[in-house]
Amino acid sequence: MTIKVIIAGPRGKMGSEAVKMVTSEQNLELVACVDRRSEGHAIREYPILTEKSIPVFESPEECLHTVDADVFIDLTVPEACFNHAVMAIRNNVRPVIGTSGLTNDQIAELRELAKGNEVGCIIAPNFALGAVLMMKFAQMAATYFPDIEIIEKHHDQKLDAPSGTAVKTAQLIKNTRKNKSQGHPDEVETMKGARGAVDEGIRIHSVRLPGLIAHQEVIFGGEGELLTIKHDSMNRQSFMTGVKFAVEKVMGIHSLVYGLENILD
Amino acid sequence: MTIKVIIAGPRGKMGSEAVKMVTSEQNLELVACVDRRSEGHAIREYPILTEKSIPVFESPEECLHTVDADVFIDLTVPEACFNHAVMAIRNNVRPVIGTSGLTNDQIAELRELAKGNEVGCIIAPNFALGAVLMMKFAQMAATYFPDIEIIEKHHDQKLDAPSGTAVKTAQLIKNTRKNKSQGHPDEVETMKGARGAVDEGIRIHSVRLPGLIAHQEVIFGGEGELLTIKHDSMNRQSFMTGVKFAVEKVMGIHSLVYGLENILD
Amino acid sequence: MTIKVIIAGPRGKMGSEAVKMVTSEQNLELVACVDRRSEGHAIREYPILTEKSIPVFESPEECLHTVDADVFIDLTVPEACFNHAVMAIRNNVRPVIGTSGLTNDQIAELRELAKGNEVGCIIAPNFALGAVLMMKFAQMAATYFPDIEIIEKHHDQKLDAPSGTAVKTAQLIKNTRKNKSQGHPDEVETMKGARGAVDEGIRIHSVRLPGLIAHQEVIFGGEGELLTIKHDSMNRQSFMTGVKFAVEKVMGIHSLVYGLENILD
Amino acid sequence: MTIKVIIAGPRGKMGSEAVKMVTSEQNLELVACVDRRSEGHAIREYPILTEKSIPVFESPEECLHTVDADVFIDLTVPEACFNHAVMAIRNNVRPVIGTSGLTNDQIAELRELAKGNEVGCIIAPNFALGAVLMMKFAQMAATYFPDIEIIEKHHDQKLDAPSGTAVKTAQLIKNTRKNKSQGHPDEVETMKGARGAVDEGIRIHSVRLPGLIAHQEVIFGGEGELLTIKHDSMNRQSFMTGVKFAVEKVMGIHSLVYGLENILD
Repeated sequence: MTIKVIIAGPRGKMGSEAVKMVTSEQNLELVACVDRRSEGHAIREYPILTEKSIPVFESPEECLHTVDADVFIDLTVPEACFNHAVMAIRNNVRPVIGTSGLTNDQIAELRELAKGNEVGCIIAPNFALGAVLMMKFAQMAATYFPDIEIIEKHHDQKLDAPSGTAVKTAQLIKNTRKNKSQGHPDEVETMKGARGAVDEGIRIHSVRLPGLIAHQEVIFGGEGELLTIKHDSMNRQSFMTGVKFAVEKVMGIHSLVYGLENILD
Repeated sequence: MTIKVIIAGPRGKMGSEAVKMVTSEQNLELVACVDRRSEGHAIREYPILTEKSIPVFESPEECLHTVDADVFIDLTVPEACFNHAVMAIRNNVRPVIGTSGLTNDQIAELRELAKGNEVGCIIAPNFALGAVLMMKFAQMAATYFPDIEIIEKHHDQKLDAPSGTAVKTAQLIKNTRKNKSQGHPDEVETMKGARGAVDEGIRIHSVRLPGLIAHQEVIFGGEGELLTIKHDSMNRQSFMTGVKFAVEKVMGIHSLVYGLENILD
Repeated sequence: MTIKVIIAGPRGKMGSEAVKMVTSEQNLELVACVDRRSEGHAIREYPILTEKSIPVFESPEECLHTVDADVFIDLTVPEACFNHAVMAIRNNVRPVIGTSGLTNDQIAELRELAKGNEVGCIIAPNFALGAVLMMKFAQMAATYFPDIEIIEKHHDQKLDAPSGTAVKTAQLIKNTRKNKSQGHPDEVETMKGARGAVDEGIRIHSVRLPGLIAHQEVIFGGEGELLTIKHDSMNRQSFMTGVKFAVEKVMGIHSLVYGLENILD
Repeated sequence: MTIKVIIAGPRGKMGSEAVKMVTSEQNLELVACVDRRSEGHAIREYPILTEKSIPVFESPEECLHTVDADVFIDLTVPEACFNHAVMAIRNNVRPVIGTSGLTNDQIAELRELAKGNEVGCIIAPNFALGAVLMMKFAQMAATYFPDIEIIEKHHDQKLDAPSGTAVKTAQLIKNTRKNKSQGHPDEVETMKGARGAVDEGIRIHSVRLPGLIAHQEVIFGGEGELLTIKHDSMNRQSFMTGVKFAVEKVMGIHSLVYGLENILD
């Protein structure tokens, strides 16, 4: 069975990757796009859409009324995306939303609406499936190995340290790790900062070098053994594995799910 | 609450580590040992036992009748270990068994006995908790990332390649990985063996060098990202994390469990 | 002192990176480009050249006669590049050539010409300085640690295994490594190919997965220790470190050098 | 040709490894040991020495006068070792000394003596050949890649951070690295210590976990590429590769050399 997909925001960084992904996967069919500025030149710029005669609508309502679809992938801005999702659910089309910009109230409203209409809906602030798995495994391992350090490595244009993913990993680990003070109690830093930052009792080290892209490893130490969970993100295409996964998963649910980690098997 | 522990086989490689572990953990108490050849010199050789006045019995029956215990850790040979387990269960003491040498019939008999007596029993062919977690995570990740290669590295005194753990990992992955032919269809080995062994559709590479101990990494490749799960086993002490985990877990179950992977939370 | 640079082939993959690099480095100045098809649209396509009013010549002779330059970076095709180099040397401008396509006769002729004119000339079949260093260090380490395995990892669109760099590394290592048969003499492959390919007595393992780019590690094993030299190539920009290095080095030499490894300090 | 070796301090941690190494290498022959407390029980404790009938002398003078030897390996304490070296040189036997405890005056005196007698002498504060190579390669690579970070990992019983090897590596790198301020100028630590310690302009990160032994990696970042040099020290046996190397090297020199890095080819 083929899943019929609408993509909103096909010209953005994520959106253009999604167009490529959906049109190349056998079990997915791109049936339409929604693009606010689609009149005129936009269509010319997307040879992939014209070649395949995929209709581009400026109005999401018109799109949803005209086209028969299963899933509505929204990769636009938060302001537009909430309204898109409301319309999609009311039209019985399942939203898959890739933004972290929705307010708690908006999420609650969508949750209500999805439940009432028994329509699946997935909101994924992070579509990097590999990173989501890394965090899940780290949380699981922390139950058994409470001695943990995180090394995250990014290109030297990144301004903040540690990375958001490292901080989120430490928070998740906190839920399963028994409270423990790591390292030797008499440990001394002969140079300040050598032992990294401390977050939730876990040490985080941030490496910044040209040539790096976005990498993180979580190292668990036990007596005589080490367990390491590592994720390397090379480019934005990596998000598409998560988008595809969400599109397939949303077909089987009848309410709203927030975060890919909650639909992993 | 302290868990009272009997150790059978305290002089073996695993057993002597278990004695050290149990006597150093606050929530465990070593109440007795069973050692077939314990008369005379054996006790002298175990200063740790004499210091702490821990009784050593030659007869497991006598031990079980004399001493009040919760768990019976058996690190002896398969021939002895089956009978030990039967006696322990009948005396309402939970066996934790570290051998892969029991026959299917013996395991079935112990399962029946444990169930009938409502006594917990754990058989763990592999006490390396980190390795067990690596395999479990690999199995989980394979659902989402079907492109997988395994690199295992061991010291150059190891005779067989690939390692048993690598083969077991590939088998476990098979259960969750959708069938996929990896690599480019026109791929050519200009030198035979470059692309490794193929097992269950997965490539396995075996590295053998002096200086290596026992290491394995499972690499999952997706578009634009990599997820790596790695285990390094430095020495036999690593098994003790698993023994401790099993001792604690067996207190809360009332039947037989085979394999640590089945008692992970 | 600023080095004045001509770039031939500014629209190619390497050439366009070189234009960016030379125009952004403080000690380099792009004084002209040579582009066979430069009339008309080409210049429009290179805003960077028009913005900075950098002249583009269709004829290399005219370029060399008109412009005062120190170095002639040639990133064109082998057929054009030999003639360019001859002209440059005769005009006292030092060629830096990034092709592996020159014949031995052509190289010999350029060597003669460079020597006669006392003009520096560098031919670099591989501008990836990090890879060149990896090979040099591997060659040095092999004197002390004869037990060596190579793991190279590439994206799964690569057709041949092992990679050219792995084979070249093994060849270089051969020069310094004492003959040794690695691994246990009774070693057995229970699955064919597990121990990788054998080249020059060294094992090579080729990993192919989506998400990988181009990576190689050379592992040296000694009693109780490991030394690993690893190179990760993320994109073509990496070649520019080598081009810049060659441009600076060619200013101080008065003959032809083949291969970056021969101008490392 | 076999090299005839005397070992002083055969019962220490290093010494006992040296006895094993020398007696197992084909081109080396253990001709005697010097052991201050060798009368009586000591010999009984060293079955390897009695089995092979290797004489053990309490007096180094007597040993040097009685036995014909090429090299005098000294693995005793600094106080004894200086006198041993003086005696050895005067007897035309080449000292190989593994201590960092000699004073500058003592080293100068030995240098003078070695030169005057034209007898080779090697003092090696660090016999870990792999670590010495790592530092040498790091120093070489720093010429070309000035963006560098060091990650060192040790067991959680280590008290000081960063490790002595990391600090020494940073010092050596300073000699070849052009001054550079690394990372983005607007970089912000949202958690203190995340970016590690700064030494000689290089960031150092110290990881401490049970299960780790002694590891260091030096990472060089360039545009689009990474070069990593990594050393893993698993146990004390690793020093023996360096001792053997020094014994072979000292045969070909006629003066004192301080530090293995200065006799690498």
